[in-house]
Amino acid sequence: MLRVAIVGATGYTGCELLDILIGHPEVKITSLTAKLDAPIKIHDEFPRFKGRIDLPCTPLDAGEVARSSDLIFLSLPHGVSMKYAALFLKAGKKVIDLSADFRFADVGVFQQWYGIRHEQTGLLKEAVYGLPELHAERIRTARLIANPGCYPTGSILALAPLVKERVVELDGLVIDSKSGVTGAGRKASLPLSFGECNESFRAYKVGAHQHTPEIESELGILAGHALAIQFTPHLVPMNRGILTTAYARPLKETSTEEIINLYGRFYAKAPFVRVAAKGRLADTKDVWGLNYCDISIVVDNRTHRIVVISAIDNLVKGAAGQAVQNMNLMSGFPETMGLA
Amino acid sequence: MLRVAIVGATGYTGCELLDILIGHPEVKITSLTAKLDAPIKIHDEFPRFKGRIDLPCTPLDAGEVARSSDLIFLSLPHGVSMKYAALFLKAGKKVIDLSADFRFADVGVFQQWYGIRHEQTGLLKEAVYGLPELHAERIRTARLIANPGCYPTGSILALAPLVKERVVELDGLVIDSKSGVTGAGRKASLPLSFGECNESFRAYKVGAHQHTPEIESELGILAGHALAIQFTPHLVPMNRGILTTAYARPLKETSTEEIINLYGRFYAKAPFVRVAAKGRLADTKDVWGLNYCDISIVVDNRTHRIVVISAIDNLVKGAAGQAVQNMNLMSGFPETMGLA
Amino acid sequence: MLRVAIVGATGYTGCELLDILIGHPEVKITSLTAKLDAPIKIHDEFPRFKGRIDLPCTPLDAGEVARSSDLIFLSLPHGVSMKYAALFLKAGKKVIDLSADFRFADVGVFQQWYGIRHEQTGLLKEAVYGLPELHAERIRTARLIANPGCYPTGSILALAPLVKERVVELDGLVIDSKSGVTGAGRKASLPLSFGECNESFRAYKVGAHQHTPEIESELGILAGHALAIQFTPHLVPMNRGILTTAYARPLKETSTEEIINLYGRFYAKAPFVRVAAKGRLADTKDVWGLNYCDISIVVDNRTHRIVVISAIDNLVKGAAGQAVQNMNLMSGFPETMGLA
Amino acid sequence: MLRVAIVGATGYTGCELLDILIGHPEVKITSLTAKLDAPIKIHDEFPRFKGRIDLPCTPLDAGEVARSSDLIFLSLPHGVSMKYAALFLKAGKKVIDLSADFRFADVGVFQQWYGIRHEQTGLLKEAVYGLPELHAERIRTARLIANPGCYPTGSILALAPLVKERVVELDGLVIDSKSGVTGAGRKASLPLSFGECNESFRAYKVGAHQHTPEIESELGILAGHALAIQFTPHLVPMNRGILTTAYARPLKETSTEEIINLYGRFYAKAPFVRVAAKGRLADTKDVWGLNYCDISIVVDNRTHRIVVISAIDNLVKGAAGQAVQNMNLMSGFPETMGLA
Repeated sequence: MLRVAIVGATGYTGCELLDILIGHPEVKITSLTAKLDAPIKIHDEFPRFKGRIDLPCTPLDAGEVARSSDLIFLSLPHGVSMKYAALFLKAGKKVIDLSADFRFADVGVFQQWYGIRHEQTGLLKEAVYGLPELHAERIRTARLIANPGCYPTGSILALAPLVKERVVELDGLVIDSKSGVTGAGRKASLPLSFGECNESFRAYKVGAHQHTPEIESELGILAGHALAIQFTPHLVPMNRGILTTAYARPLKETSTEEIINLYGRFYAKAPFVRVAAKGRLADTKDVWGLNYCDISIVVDNRTHRIVVISAIDNLVKGAAGQAVQNMNLMSGFPETMGLA
Repeated sequence: MLRVAIVGATGYTGCELLDILIGHPEVKITSLTAKLDAPIKIHDEFPRFKGRIDLPCTPLDAGEVARSSDLIFLSLPHGVSMKYAALFLKAGKKVIDLSADFRFADVGVFQQWYGIRHEQTGLLKEAVYGLPELHAERIRTARLIANPGCYPTGSILALAPLVKERVVELDGLVIDSKSGVTGAGRKASLPLSFGECNESFRAYKVGAHQHTPEIESELGILAGHALAIQFTPHLVPMNRGILTTAYARPLKETSTEEIINLYGRFYAKAPFVRVAAKGRLADTKDVWGLNYCDISIVVDNRTHRIVVISAIDNLVKGAAGQAVQNMNLMSGFPETMGLA
Repeated sequence: MLRVAIVGATGYTGCELLDILIGHPEVKITSLTAKLDAPIKIHDEFPRFKGRIDLPCTPLDAGEVARSSDLIFLSLPHGVSMKYAALFLKAGKKVIDLSADFRFADVGVFQQWYGIRHEQTGLLKEAVYGLPELHAERIRTARLIANPGCYPTGSILALAPLVKERVVELDGLVIDSKSGVTGAGRKASLPLSFGECNESFRAYKVGAHQHTPEIESELGILAGHALAIQFTPHLVPMNRGILTTAYARPLKETSTEEIINLYGRFYAKAPFVRVAAKGRLADTKDVWGLNYCDISIVVDNRTHRIVVISAIDNLVKGAAGQAVQNMNLMSGFPETMGLA
Repeated sequence: MLRVAIVGATGYTGCELLDILIGHPEVKITSLTAKLDAPIKIHDEFPRFKGRIDLPCTPLDAGEVARSSDLIFLSLPHGVSMKYAALFLKAGKKVIDLSADFRFADVGVFQQWYGIRHEQTGLLKEAVYGLPELHAERIRTARLIANPGCYPTGSILALAPLVKERVVELDGLVIDSKSGVTGAGRKASLPLSFGECNESFRAYKVGAHQHTPEIESELGILAGHALAIQFTPHLVPMNRGILTTAYARPLKETSTEEIINLYGRFYAKAPFVRVAAKGRLADTKDVWGLNYCDISIVVDNRTHRIVVISAIDNLVKGAAGQAVQNMNLMSGFPETMGLA
């Protein structure tokens, strides 16, 4: 049994990780920590775990976490993760970091968009961007995974085949994305209160969201050169789910069938990408609680544009589920174990 | 034109008051204040008011408020209101207080349930409980109105005819009430965040909610003696509305028709109480944004019980609308002015 | 592997059954049927199953279902189930019926509340009411299970210990219950449309809901005599979850601790009942997607009443999860298999 | 007093019209009709109107409607409206048609996108597209108004200044729009049921929505030539509101301030367009129940693109409110009467 720890267990992502890992047949959860003054039972904070796991959640004692576990999920704020990642790696542990700290090869991009000084630049080269559909081979042998952001997961998977296969103009990609409220984290916040979010739909951080460079970075690698995308996130009055509507111009005339076939080939070995048949459109409801990324395609010959729509559960494929998928690959388990 | 001020304009109730008063033909809003470091435009906080009213919202300067207005709505925390009420009354102004500070004739009850020492006990006798369906005459001549709580409004109106007319056993009333989330106020709070409230239904403060003694106090006046009710509030994942389901045992056999007729007579002169025909049930949706209290009645002869269900909009009849209804009565305006 | 069929797979309950059974380690799903003109892929109707199960959903051919499966879940309308139950039992199969057809020992009660003539009265004696917390032993050896209704599950579990142990007055139980919208089934219906349910809270079928006699019947068995309860269902703008608030009068002075202890003992061997510690209140969110019934207790000494609040997921413990729990017992599997 | 009729009063738009017109100081509602077998009270269908208006809603008798009213709102299905519009115009009445029947100068476009044969082509020339921000002068003297669709209202207002003033490339406009569920009408429909819409976010009719040619037609008039837009509608789990995110490429370098100023000038005389200050973003919540179109602008110099976000209430500015705005102009009332 793989001994795993969750550092930062009381956020939505930590809680989802726990929910998934409880059902994983090859995992033993050995440590849960959070920013606390004193240990609690995890079900004191989340009654849904009562009777399902009987583990205390304690203030973080890095030495203790290292002693008791083989692989550590870090669900910590950006800028805080890097220090602990370094520490656990040094202790010979594997680390899956759910923050943005190791997602950028170019430290300047990270520092510019996050406004945080990077203190572990030596690890950036080793860190692998944990999107298994693109980097499965490197993930298998990685010690440090930078688990992707939620918007980037849905956006990159939506556009990767078009970019990689040179089907579309790379100057002018538009990504209009819509997320449920848990994507903003679990915290006391007036703008995230029910009275402010319910019966409300709004955009935020237009052209300025920190997930923008992450999408650009990965699509840029596929393109072979830097590119800029227009990314607009919106807040949907629902708990979970991200729908991403991406717009691209084909370089030459094509058809919905042709592009669906392209995606089918591109993701032939990806167990968690489901390409919809012609005429079907992705819906966040269909991936609720699941690790799938559903992708649907419409080629609009009237306007000469390809519209790609992807749906994920922001807490599963967009965070905790993808982290477990990465853990499976790193540990030699079947990629779908505990996730199907 | 009546010059009015709203002290505490940036909560949900203050905002709703403003929304209603903007459309009131006999009112001029002269002052908006809130807990602020510096003046803002009210539409900086609530963009919905942009172009509809062009008034600054300022830190509270009681002298300035008194100078510029004739009637003052206090939408302040319990315990804070009392001080300002006294001050404005002294300046010769009329006051409608939306806090609980003046709702109890018995200061001991207030102090016990609110845990606050009352510092203006001299005003308790003068204050009139602002439920127009029961106290219209006293409201007309009052200087100080204690505007009822949201749950008490729905609960008292649901049971008043049965209690007043001695139709039911008074020992054993059960009130099961369900409120939209704005009832808890506008604030940063984890339990009130969207992710915690959506797809959640829960009770809170069972047997211990501070609105319990307010209901008991008013029903006790109607009964002619003290009584205890079982009151359970619940939180509904919606913005607005309170549905109250009240259970009582009739002293003798009766029928739905008979009780509907009783309510019809009892509320014959109450423009904002609508008693439903037999077979129709109250729905919070039907009073959304309106100052009505809808009441529906089922006499269950199988179980020998009367079930009364009332619906109000917690921000309108449960707060701001009722305050304006009181203002109308105090000012000699038609009771429904600006509310229909 | 136990070969199971779902007859009526395209409702919310059928879909939830499928979701649970896909993950059950001892089950092979061999047949899915629904009211259809021609076979479909189940993921044509529910895209969430794409890639997870590759089975057609066909028009019902009872012979084929009997040939291919050992145990059959019937998720059919009341009155329709009885005929197929009889047929499958005759073919030597085990049947778990999710309709109300076999829930009443007294056929007159069924016919009165459902307005349907019972055509398989010979099976009523053999059918076992599938609430494992009360009837586990009989369930283990049953051929025909009447799977409980959603409201009755939450209501009976909330009150059973009080009734069985003679702690409360049996004349005067009030059950105020609130359900998410999926409880009403999957269908085109104006009152169930989003625009009519969202930002709405309402009661329905007050004193007249067909689950009333089911609750009375089971509590009556525990009491040793017939009793009448006041049952009021309400519709909550959320997908899943039932919160039940039950009110009872203790026969003698008691305390929250004492009643919590009583429940702890009563449900000591029930893996899916979680009794909350003093001060904690049940929330539908905490059982979302889980087979638990969470129960919380407040003894109100001011009013001399016991308030019991239970929470279930109407589609899991209130339907499909409980059906699988019954299947586990009938098949000699661990009670929690595939449900934890 | 202007005597008005609502033909088709039991849909969401008809109901909203009634809600607005009840408060209009210069209007007397004289007739309500709907597809009915026999007359009902309007509050039998919509209890929210009880006590507010006491008018029967009857099966449509066109002669009676014409006799009793001066101006008629048609809230009828596409293809049905045209016949009644012709009839009422012939009787000398003014007509505001909320269907699409008269929105297109080019009858071929109508017939192609709606699949309906136009039988009153003679009226197309006379009909005025009722978007007051663009056509106020013609509306004042019109007899027949084609009230705009909900998506087109938000989309056209978002882009009109950029198109009219030749600021952006016209080949390549992308409009990504998100609507609350009432936009789909009031009807029994499985895809519109609560269980299917709540916790769901999805696109529909991608590149094929019938509002596309309406947007293209009006923007084409402003441009002086035909243009094609990419339009994608989505369904948001909320009752009301449309947020439209539009993407355009500027022909030359510009700035957020410059574009905000342009919009300010363009809409200087439009009382219902509110252009947000730099840094503020439109939110459907801020126009809930109001007739405003809020517009916010971000010029992204990193990507050389202008992002315009508009918010309307689909039932108010997107339907009933705009219809009343048109009525005001046609009747010589102040444009904002009854709407502020």
